[in-house]
Amino acid sequence: MLWDNYPEIKRKLRKVETIIEQNLKCRNKPLEELLQTLLKGGKRLRPAFSILSAGFGKQQNDKIYDAAAGIEILHMATLVHDDIIDEAGMRRGKPTINSVYGDKMSVYVGDYLLSRSVLLLSRTLPEDRLEKIARALKSICEAEIEQFFSRFNLDVSPVTYLKRIGRKTSALFAFSCGEGAFLSGCDENSQKNLIKFGFYFGMAFQMYDDILDLVGDTKETGKPKGNDIKEGIITIPFILALRKNATFAKNARKIMSAETIKTADIKKIIDEIISLGGIDDTRAWIDRYLQKAHTMLEPLPDIREKEIFHDIMLTLEK
Amino acid sequence: MLWDNYPEIKRKLRKVETIIEQNLKCRNKPLEELLQTLLKGGKRLRPAFSILSAGFGKQQNDKIYDAAAGIEILHMATLVHDDIIDEAGMRRGKPTINSVYGDKMSVYVGDYLLSRSVLLLSRTLPEDRLEKIARALKSICEAEIEQFFSRFNLDVSPVTYLKRIGRKTSALFAFSCGEGAFLSGCDENSQKNLIKFGFYFGMAFQMYDDILDLVGDTKETGKPKGNDIKEGIITIPFILALRKNATFAKNARKIMSAETIKTADIKKIIDEIISLGGIDDTRAWIDRYLQKAHTMLEPLPDIREKEIFHDIMLTLEK
Repeated sequence: MLWDNYPEIKRKLRKVETIIEQNLKCRNKPLEELLQTLLKGGKRLRPAFSILSAGFGKQQNDKIYDAAAGIEILHMATLVHDDIIDEAGMRRGKPTINSVYGDKMSVYVGDYLLSRSVLLLSRTLPEDRLEKIARALKSICEAEIEQFFSRFNLDVSPVTYLKRIGRKTSALFAFSCGEGAFLSGCDENSQKNLIKFGFYFGMAFQMYDDILDLVGDTKETGKPKGNDIKEGIITIPFILALRKNATFAKNARKIMSAETIKTADIKKIIDEIISLGGIDDTRAWIDRYLQKAHTMLEPLPDIREKEIFHDIMLTLEK
Repeated sequence: MLWDNYPEIKRKLRKVETIIEQNLKCRNKPLEELLQTLLKGGKRLRPAFSILSAGFGKQQNDKIYDAAAGIEILHMATLVHDDIIDEAGMRRGKPTINSVYGDKMSVYVGDYLLSRSVLLLSRTLPEDRLEKIARALKSICEAEIEQFFSRFNLDVSPVTYLKRIGRKTSALFAFSCGEGAFLSGCDENSQKNLIKFGFYFGMAFQMYDDILDLVGDTKETGKPKGNDIKEGIITIPFILALRKNATFAKNARKIMSAETIKTADIKKIIDEIISLGGIDDTRAWIDRYLQKAHTMLEPLPDIREKEIFHDIMLTLEK
């Protein structure tokens, strides 16, 4: 477990865990069981980022744990709905709700989680901050919708991709850091730096995730290799490879236009992406964003939380 | 159009319409078009109830239009997600998003609408009121999840049904009335009465809708007759008929346990419900709830808005 090396963070995350559990209690027993299963697993990166950011403030504020829990519940809601979109059968090594109960159930469980998240956050955050979380949710949805309409479009540009992942993933990391910083009474400059740090980290994190989809250990990701390709989602390693070789672009276009894409063809595309340097180039992009994230932390005091942020960044560098 | 006879309400609803339109603007063109189509149609009952309730207050408050728009956007979000659950092909006489783009799209369009609704309401309402809308959303989800787990369960009791529709439908009507009353500065007693009025009306409204599913004009409802039965959703006319005749209960149980339910069998069930008085009994229930709603309005001043509320109740009496 990621946090085993950081007992002080682990202890604080346990508080968040308890709040999440309390907030997912409900009368409906089958739903309750479902939610408890959902709860297990997950690295709790976003709540941890709130907690770590709060370390840079001068106030001890227990609302941080509520906010962190609310953010994680929101994240869980988007995961449940993502699994419908992805037709995923497994998530965090467990069968997804939609693979057991069908898409219909997933829709309402996701909505239920959203309502619980808004409920918790509306009790925790002042009104203008709540607007920010609604904005983050709006961003995520816009990105997912844009991604949906861009499926199987091999002309998607790196800029479109970057904008998309900024909304899809980075916005919530930025919000997590921002709320922690705000609630702990960080000065405005530090708040801004931590928000930007979260944003840049989120970019690197998503690109890392997109690499995992292509070459990651299936057991770890819980999804078949090349699931994005099968779904027509063109991520940055693919985009970069497409721009390097016209023959590959032509072949890929042919494969991707088929009614159903064969597993062998997906493997062929992945192999080409690798040999054209799509993965390596993406790693270079990741490093660039981690560097930006790094720069945002520089003006902040050298406390333990900063070290931990650096350690987490290192996990995306391999 | 329902509001043609009430020009003052129609004029106010047009303000709400404009706010909805403004709040559904977005950069993504295909999404924009989709949302514009969604916007058309719909009776705007909930915003109208906010506006009518506001008539009992002493303040003119333009926030009422924003709140009413936020509530309608929330309602639209639940409709989009309902259409996935219902496997509906038509809504308000137009093809549903999921029938055109598939379930995946519907999920995110619904989420997007939810985020826009929360965004608008968080700008409009004080924090503790926002908690109420999150509660209403939570209620709706819980009811839909409970309904899902109760599918094809012919032992569902009238009490379970009443609790369900209280959460699924009445909660939002109650909230609509409550916000209008609150924002216009109604005294506490009037606020409570209007909230209860909305709740009781919502109960009658849902039962009326459940009758329509069985015997309504398919062109008007946009759904095939007996869609609820096909989906295994046991509504009050069915429940009441089941309790009247053991032979029917036995036959219905057999039909409902089949892998797929034939259209002829659905027709058979509907005919039996009618001849056993399930529809007539439900009408009596509707009248009872309308009477309760009526009682809540009694202590309020005899203004034009009260008349209009009475007129709308009459539309459920036939």
